[in-house]
Amino acid sequence: MQRDPMLKLFYAPNSCAMASHIALEEAGAAYEAVKVDLVAGDQRKPDYLAINPKGRVPALVTDRGILTENPAILAFVAQTHPGAGLAPLDDAYEFGRIQSFNSYLCSTVHVAHAHRMRAYRWADDPAAMAEMRRKVPQNVGECFDLIENELFKGPWVMGERYSISDPYLFTLSGWLKGDDVELARFPKIHDHYRRMQQRPAVASVLPLHQR
Amino acid sequence: MQRDPMLKLFYAPNSCAMASHIALEEAGAAYEAVKVDLVAGDQRKPDYLAINPKGRVPALVTDRGILTENPAILAFVAQTHPGAGLAPLDDAYEFGRIQSFNSYLCSTVHVAHAHRMRAYRWADDPAAMAEMRRKVPQNVGECFDLIENELFKGPWVMGERYSISDPYLFTLSGWLKGDDVELARFPKIHDHYRRMQQRPAVASVLPLHQR
Ligand SMILES: N[C@@H](CCC(=O)N[C@@H](CS)C(=O)NCC(=O)O)C(=O)O
Ligand SMILES: N[C@@H](CCC(=O)N[C@@H](CS)C(=O)NCC(=O)O)C(=O)O
Repeated sequence: MQRDPMLKLFYAPNSCAMASHIALEEAGAAYEAVKVDLVAGDQRKPDYLAINPKGRVPALVTDRGILTENPAILAFVAQTHPGAGLAPLDDAYEFGRIQSFNSYLCSTVHVAHAHRMRAYRWADDPAAMAEMRRKVPQNVGECFDLIENELFKGPWVMGERYSISDPYLFTLSGWLKGDDVELARFPKIHDHYRRMQQRPAVASVLPLHQR
Repeated sequence: MQRDPMLKLFYAPNSCAMASHIALEEAGAAYEAVKVDLVAGDQRKPDYLAINPKGRVPALVTDRGILTENPAILAFVAQTHPGAGLAPLDDAYEFGRIQSFNSYLCSTVHVAHAHRMRAYRWADDPAAMAEMRRKVPQNVGECFDLIENELFKGPWVMGERYSISDPYLFTLSGWLKGDDVELARFPKIHDHYRRMQQRPAVASVLPLHQR
């Protein structure tokens, strides 16, 4: 197993950072996980803004500098731990399929979900924010319909090979209940969720993500 | 120059697909650009949904299959045209910086902008949609402040080397005016925009993106 003692992951429990957290664990990376208290607003304090000026998690501190954004961190973990086989690194098309899936989660599925807790990013009026929250179950549900019916290959997201797309989907699947969407509505994703929970890397990280 | 006669880019004028379009041109790729009429709603017709079930542009048809999402297509173009030097392919950290920047544009900046024309994705009530539109200039402006002050290295996005992040930033910078945000408020990005317009690859693609 590779050891990179310089890696430090800033995460928050049950946030999207769980995807990068699981990937580090799957890679067998030597890293430290540092909790950021989003409820206390630590992500907007100067100490953390010096790490990630966006005021978000995840952020991965490397010996070269700091990387943010799940799709970037996930690809970095896969590329720097080739032995873990978390992405097809010599096949631009297969790598592109992973980036495409992760980019969809990041730009569309995560954003659909964020309109529940973070509607204030896009509106100030309380009535508008309430209306945005109201639509979250429908919007998130439609995103997962698309994943279930079009994007998910099985048994893993990309097909036979487990990849960095799996912890990312698992993380967002875990938000469905809070968004009033039934995970069981998506049989393949539901089954994926259960198999993910049984992976040692996932089981070892989950306790840090209980809120 | 490499030739990949199998590449076909589905794009719409002045849409985010312009980023992938410019990258293909910079790479010297042999590709065909196929226009999708978003105003006519062609992206939601069965023919196009068979190409991209998300009903969005861009989509890149390759001889292996179809890739969607700008960050994925941009990375694919860079990786399959290494001679064009559009990304540092042997340096996971530098590649990660590009992915991080592109992921921010995709998940946050593009989405901030989309609340003007596509507010219906996140609300049904006309008053809520109007409120979302109202906040777009502030939200988009703050995203560009962050790029100007924190992320943009200069003279190109990543520093000395032109990369796939440059056409992506250029594309989103071109939307500022329509969002009632002054490009001139961001001196580095403004200068970048002017230098981008002078690149032959950009100049050759721009006529297809006039609306
Ligand atoms: N596009 C970013 C999104 C990061 C993000 O929005 N993180 C959330 C947690 S899921 C956060 O830090 N929120 C804190 C806040 O908005 O104040 C990524 O995928 O890494
Ligand atoms: N995350 C996607 C977003 C694609 C997207 O939203 N494209 C817009 C054009 S800028 C579109 O096709 N809109 C058509 C519609 O919403 O009907 C990407 O970066 O490729």
